[in-house]
Amino acid sequence: MTISGEFTRIDRWLRPLADGFAGAAGLKDDAAFLTPPAGCDLVITTDTMVAGVHYTGREAPQDLAAKLVRVNLSDLAGKLARPFGYTLNLALGEGEDDAWFEAFCQGLAAEQDRYGITLMGGDSVRTPGPAVLTLTGFGTVPAGQGPRRGDARAGDAVLVTGTIGDAAIGLLAVQDPMFMTGLPGRETLVAAYYRPDPPVAFAPELLGLVHASMDISDGLAADLAHICEASGLGARLHAPRVPVSDAAAAAIADHPDLFAQALGGGDDYQLLLTAAPDAVPQIEHAAATAGLRITVIGEMTDGQDGVAILDQDGRPLTLASAGYTHF
Amino acid sequence: MTISGEFTRIDRWLRPLADGFAGAAGLKDDAAFLTPPAGCDLVITTDTMVAGVHYTGREAPQDLAAKLVRVNLSDLAGKLARPFGYTLNLALGEGEDDAWFEAFCQGLAAEQDRYGITLMGGDSVRTPGPAVLTLTGFGTVPAGQGPRRGDARAGDAVLVTGTIGDAAIGLLAVQDPMFMTGLPGRETLVAAYYRPDPPVAFAPELLGLVHASMDISDGLAADLAHICEASGLGARLHAPRVPVSDAAAAAIADHPDLFAQALGGGDDYQLLLTAAPDAVPQIEHAAATAGLRITVIGEMTDGQDGVAILDQDGRPLTLASAGYTHF
Repeated sequence: MTISGEFTRIDRWLRPLADGFAGAAGLKDDAAFLTPPAGCDLVITTDTMVAGVHYTGREAPQDLAAKLVRVNLSDLAGKLARPFGYTLNLALGEGEDDAWFEAFCQGLAAEQDRYGITLMGGDSVRTPGPAVLTLTGFGTVPAGQGPRRGDARAGDAVLVTGTIGDAAIGLLAVQDPMFMTGLPGRETLVAAYYRPDPPVAFAPELLGLVHASMDISDGLAADLAHICEASGLGARLHAPRVPVSDAAAAAIADHPDLFAQALGGGDDYQLLLTAAPDAVPQIEHAAATAGLRITVIGEMTDGQDGVAILDQDGRPLTLASAGYTHF
Repeated sequence: MTISGEFTRIDRWLRPLADGFAGAAGLKDDAAFLTPPAGCDLVITTDTMVAGVHYTGREAPQDLAAKLVRVNLSDLAGKLARPFGYTLNLALGEGEDDAWFEAFCQGLAAEQDRYGITLMGGDSVRTPGPAVLTLTGFGTVPAGQGPRRGDARAGDAVLVTGTIGDAAIGLLAVQDPMFMTGLPGRETLVAAYYRPDPPVAFAPELLGLVHASMDISDGLAADLAHICEASGLGARLHAPRVPVSDAAAAAIADHPDLFAQALGGGDDYQLLLTAAPDAVPQIEHAAATAGLRITVIGEMTDGQDGVAILDQDGRPLTLASAGYTHF
């Protein structure tokens, strides 16, 4: 097990990731210079993940790199921003040797290719404790047009992209090797947990079409409650309309209480949007053109009583899952 | 010992720090919006400090907050940037309870007042290991005018602000309670280690007057070597001209080998500059107006043989300190 020093880590593995960004000066200076495009606001988000707390530590380093990048790009997508770069602060533990680090950087390189982003700078140190990984993502939106959680209006339709609950059910499978053994969708759900797929390229197409917008990371029900609180409104969420994948549907058919896990469990990294009802056809058309699923799952109300989850008959549904009540 | 959850930490202590920055939306969204001033480049720098590795962990939380802020503002000053904001990623350990965190945030508030900066966003999590603190500093320079390490020219004068070696000698006093006991400057040197004082407000006044510029954090000799390498040049450093404080001078008089520690030890957080000789009077005038010490300590040469440290007779000086050779 070889563990190189900071200069070697930078020289050999990090510098190539910054090649595409002139302002990084090959990571050979104390700061990055960034010339912001005219007429744009910068959108900045950041997440810190601790080994054993926010990830299991058993992930392939490439998967972990993908997750660290994508949870941040998901936040940017939630603000309809176009990502262009990131900074990286790595406090590596004893388990993260050179082989681990090389694989992690290979994962970063693949993400850069996938999303058209480059490394702009960062810091790389050692810790005697568990690894602590911080990524700060940078994107742009047209000036003043980035949507906030608090921009919902009463009467808005509530929409989600993709499917809900795959990662939350996948996490159960990650934690319990016996869970869903033999079910055909198991691998799909586990993959959804390890490799979220936020609609990064699609999000900016929604500029001007939606009111409130955010990504779903705490769970659909909790994040809709965030929009309600920030907007001073209530919401009705029609449970039967919540889109689930075939894999998740099969798991839920087996264990009906998993539906609560799907709504409450988090890690979806899809978009949660509100829009005027007459904008919905345009939004649906844009999603169809992009090959993405988008679904109206409820509406905003002028009540201030949070999120009402309703069954197929419009009656309040009680979700008894710990996943749901964690918020 | 009370340890509150993330939402409480944000609500009670972090949100007030972001009051001055509208784009932070009260830390209630997933991202910050930043409208860059026209005609400016953003300058971005970031540092990660691990408890027990990059700081002792015995610091007062207010001192630690000051250091975390100032090492980053020093990097921005090194690029002659004017700071305006920062993001913060905190992985707190078991030792950092609510009382600690409140004091830490009081320290941040004092730094915000001192430097005219505001919190823009971040992440706050728990780790079972030692605390890992990341601060990312944001500043601006007029577009295209930020200086690089590699901008030095042969024949340039080499200058430093302030005095050199106080923090490096102060660290020895921090590590060894018996060191310098009774010497009058001991407290001054310890304070220089805990509370660096980079010339943040002054640095932007040097725009257009200097060629290469960086802050001194690895040690004067090592950082001048960085400028040489990046610029493809050599440098002569005249040891007797290196400015030392009265406190450091007293310590060196007692232990002559401490001079090597001063040149090699790091943590000065002063500016290292190169400039055309005919710009030096203007630079000296600007520094005098700002009440700052600035000293010509050497010159850049067209050799590519690194830094030659010379004694009062112009003969090469060998510094046998581990501090010096650590680079």
